[in-house]
Amino acid sequence: MLPTTESAIGETPALIVVDAQDSESETDHPMRSDCGSIPGGREAIVDRINTVVEHARDADVPIVWGKELHRTDFADYGSELESCEPEHGAYGSAAERLDADLVVDEADLPPAEYVVEKRRYNFFHRTDIEHILSTYDVDTVILVGFMTNICVHYTAHGAHERDYAFRVVEEGTGAPTDRLHEIGLECIRYLQPRGLRNVEAVTEALDDYAGNPVVQRVKEEGKVTQETGAVPPTLAGKRPAETE
Amino acid sequence: MLPTTESAIGETPALIVVDAQDSESETDHPMRSDCGSIPGGREAIVDRINTVVEHARDADVPIVWGKELHRTDFADYGSELESCEPEHGAYGSAAERLDADLVVDEADLPPAEYVVEKRRYNFFHRTDIEHILSTYDVDTVILVGFMTNICVHYTAHGAHERDYAFRVVEEGTGAPTDRLHEIGLECIRYLQPRGLRNVEAVTEALDDYAGNPVVQRVKEEGKVTQETGAVPPTLAGKRPAETE
Amino acid sequence: MLPTTESAIGETPALIVVDAQDSESETDHPMRSDCGSIPGGREAIVDRINTVVEHARDADVPIVWGKELHRTDFADYGSELESCEPEHGAYGSAAERLDADLVVDEADLPPAEYVVEKRRYNFFHRTDIEHILSTYDVDTVILVGFMTNICVHYTAHGAHERDYAFRVVEEGTGAPTDRLHEIGLECIRYLQPRGLRNVEAVTEALDDYAGNPVVQRVKEEGKVTQETGAVPPTLAGKRPAETE
Amino acid sequence: MLPTTESAIGETPALIVVDAQDSESETDHPMRSDCGSIPGGREAIVDRINTVVEHARDADVPIVWGKELHRTDFADYGSELESCEPEHGAYGSAAERLDADLVVDEADLPPAEYVVEKRRYNFFHRTDIEHILSTYDVDTVILVGFMTNICVHYTAHGAHERDYAFRVVEEGTGAPTDRLHEIGLECIRYLQPRGLRNVEAVTEALDDYAGNPVVQRVKEEGKVTQETGAVPPTLAGKRPAETE
Repeated sequence: MLPTTESAIGETPALIVVDAQDSESETDHPMRSDCGSIPGGREAIVDRINTVVEHARDADVPIVWGKELHRTDFADYGSELESCEPEHGAYGSAAERLDADLVVDEADLPPAEYVVEKRRYNFFHRTDIEHILSTYDVDTVILVGFMTNICVHYTAHGAHERDYAFRVVEEGTGAPTDRLHEIGLECIRYLQPRGLRNVEAVTEALDDYAGNPVVQRVKEEGKVTQETGAVPPTLAGKRPAETE
Repeated sequence: MLPTTESAIGETPALIVVDAQDSESETDHPMRSDCGSIPGGREAIVDRINTVVEHARDADVPIVWGKELHRTDFADYGSELESCEPEHGAYGSAAERLDADLVVDEADLPPAEYVVEKRRYNFFHRTDIEHILSTYDVDTVILVGFMTNICVHYTAHGAHERDYAFRVVEEGTGAPTDRLHEIGLECIRYLQPRGLRNVEAVTEALDDYAGNPVVQRVKEEGKVTQETGAVPPTLAGKRPAETE
Repeated sequence: MLPTTESAIGETPALIVVDAQDSESETDHPMRSDCGSIPGGREAIVDRINTVVEHARDADVPIVWGKELHRTDFADYGSELESCEPEHGAYGSAAERLDADLVVDEADLPPAEYVVEKRRYNFFHRTDIEHILSTYDVDTVILVGFMTNICVHYTAHGAHERDYAFRVVEEGTGAPTDRLHEIGLECIRYLQPRGLRNVEAVTEALDDYAGNPVVQRVKEEGKVTQETGAVPPTLAGKRPAETE
Repeated sequence: MLPTTESAIGETPALIVVDAQDSESETDHPMRSDCGSIPGGREAIVDRINTVVEHARDADVPIVWGKELHRTDFADYGSELESCEPEHGAYGSAAERLDADLVVDEADLPPAEYVVEKRRYNFFHRTDIEHILSTYDVDTVILVGFMTNICVHYTAHGAHERDYAFRVVEEGTGAPTDRLHEIGLECIRYLQPRGLRNVEAVTEALDDYAGNPVVQRVKEEGKVTQETGAVPPTLAGKRPAETE
């Protein structure tokens, strides 16, 4: 879909919460950053993520909760072994859970909310997220979470090269240092200058949004469509006369 | 987009002409099949492709002309070297041109028509076709061309797994033997029973189609949008105040 | 890697067990097929899968256990709603478990064995399997499981178009009818004539295989490499001091 | 392949020359940057690219010459319309040619050198480059070209997330401003600290390299393999006895 709007949430948004995972400790770590970049640190950012989530939920916007996770033998780690990051995201560690302060219960997700696991920074890389976005006709992804310069930035890029618009919520993301946060924002702004917004602009636009009709169907009927089940299986040599 | 229609062309179709390339001779060859499967052979199929093309063109539907081509040193051939097919699609051979009997002049393509080169059977694999489909908001690909069981079938599958609907025009495709043609049709019918149609059903639905508005813009103005050029580059530390 | 061998397992194989999931009942169903195509039915096939697994395990070959699973609201179902198949693979159903007769305990996987979930027929589509194959330098995937014409066939095609060789174990796969089984085998044979083998040929070649050195490291040390953790951020003589 | 070396060129390198395309004028432009970031500007960088190319060519390393190009009606432009960049890379403009000062004749490419067109910043996105890299068993891409923070950086990231190592030649790339160049280098260094090298280190390692055996075969015999042509097509119901 060609870009058609300057709206703070695009035409048909989804919200992606990037790597807001739990941590073993409060120490500085790429995946459990103390977000020195943001006054109030990680806690303040999680508060803002919660604000955006609540507006998105009320506005009937689909929500994807993302986690970067890795097998403990590093079989899926690949070039991340070449990264400057320490080991992170192991199954069995605290990272397997979403941050306890988020307004969501993973064991009982609200309708039209999903957990998606990823292996690399970019949420679009070798995950099933595009199936979900396609179901909801999404043209724009709203991004919050960690870290500005890595998973948020490369997910914005992953959206960009697949012809989605994005809206990064500037105060809803952070990085361990001011400099890394600022580099992330500059890269994001270069990709889509309209793609960097603040909490106020995004929540106001969400409040004005008519709601995603497929989300509304899921909330009412429990399914994205009632037309499930098999199309008549005209197999084994039968002519497809009934398809005309 | 969830499937929403039983129409013979879907909601927003594009036409893909698969591997209707020229050949050195009339001999039987996977890429220059004599299409024993179809009474009248390749010539009859090309006639039908032309019919579908003309209706699609009149209906303001985007058209992609596909070619499978390979570098002459086989550097991009990979696992095709393991295939049962003989060498095919070399740059510099007749395969570099579209079939001379097609109603198109490659050197002067009509508006909203494109040539896309591919390396594997599946048109969606490592090509830029999805950028074009996204520009025109396409949800359904109409497929004609060669061969039923290989490039048409695996392109239908490539569309299927990316959540497009497809409509294969049954008499607009062929294979070297009846058996291969029939196997192709059975695979296609399994994937999407609604996805196998005939020329009459497809051309009638094209005649009733309101036309793709982006195609209409390209025909009138020469571009998919006039809003090209840079969004103001708010780089190098400037705050994105103008984005709110 | 260019094809270099006619060996029944390639140079550096991995074994993929496709969709051998548990079922609610014994009724005929694409995902819990009774495999009319094979004398002895599904049970006989599972026995043969177990044979291949045991030889692969002894030969230090990495093993991927695959499951096709879908969210119960169909948010990831997309074009499968257009398929001739009934609803299948729901989380919370029996399909969430591997077949109980397989020689594996999912809760306690042996070293260098992995469970990978997929959403479409083709195991390579939007999953992390290529990260695992890359870690083990795999050039050839050995395929067993269900069904011949769908998930086994389209996974073979997914491997093919990504330049892997494949080896489908003919009696280690099945389909609901003889005809579907035979169509699957013919498609597979067309893609890579060397890619269709029998249990005896594959297990003999596995018995002769020297073993994957990374599998051997995982069995001994628990990890694919001991060189994990951050690469010191010091390259080309320079320290990137400005990033701290 | 797991990272196994600190070598300035990896184990099995390919050289990718990113977007070193011709320009209409010398004005500052994302695609025809005057590279204010580098003393001597674009001309000095092209000289260094030529140096790296000549060492790679002598060392029997495959070379890919990349061009970002777009259809003049913007049908493949997608989210780039949301970028801060002005229109760029149109077919029919000077950008269709490689920079005239490069040591290559596009119309008569040396053996094992290729032109690949791309539509987005990241060279790995929807192009056929991975087929070529696979043919030559490449584990590491050496990157030179334009611009540091965009196409070089996002190609490095595209390599990274597909489990290739990369080596960016620091003085062989540039950007319109010092700041953009520096941001690009910082992002690159974060991804793979071992991935940022200088001309001297890379050319010395190339001089010591034994050469890619497939490149050597192409130089001697004109093809990546002589084993082309069809594997016996055991189709249409025949048993694959000969494959055992």
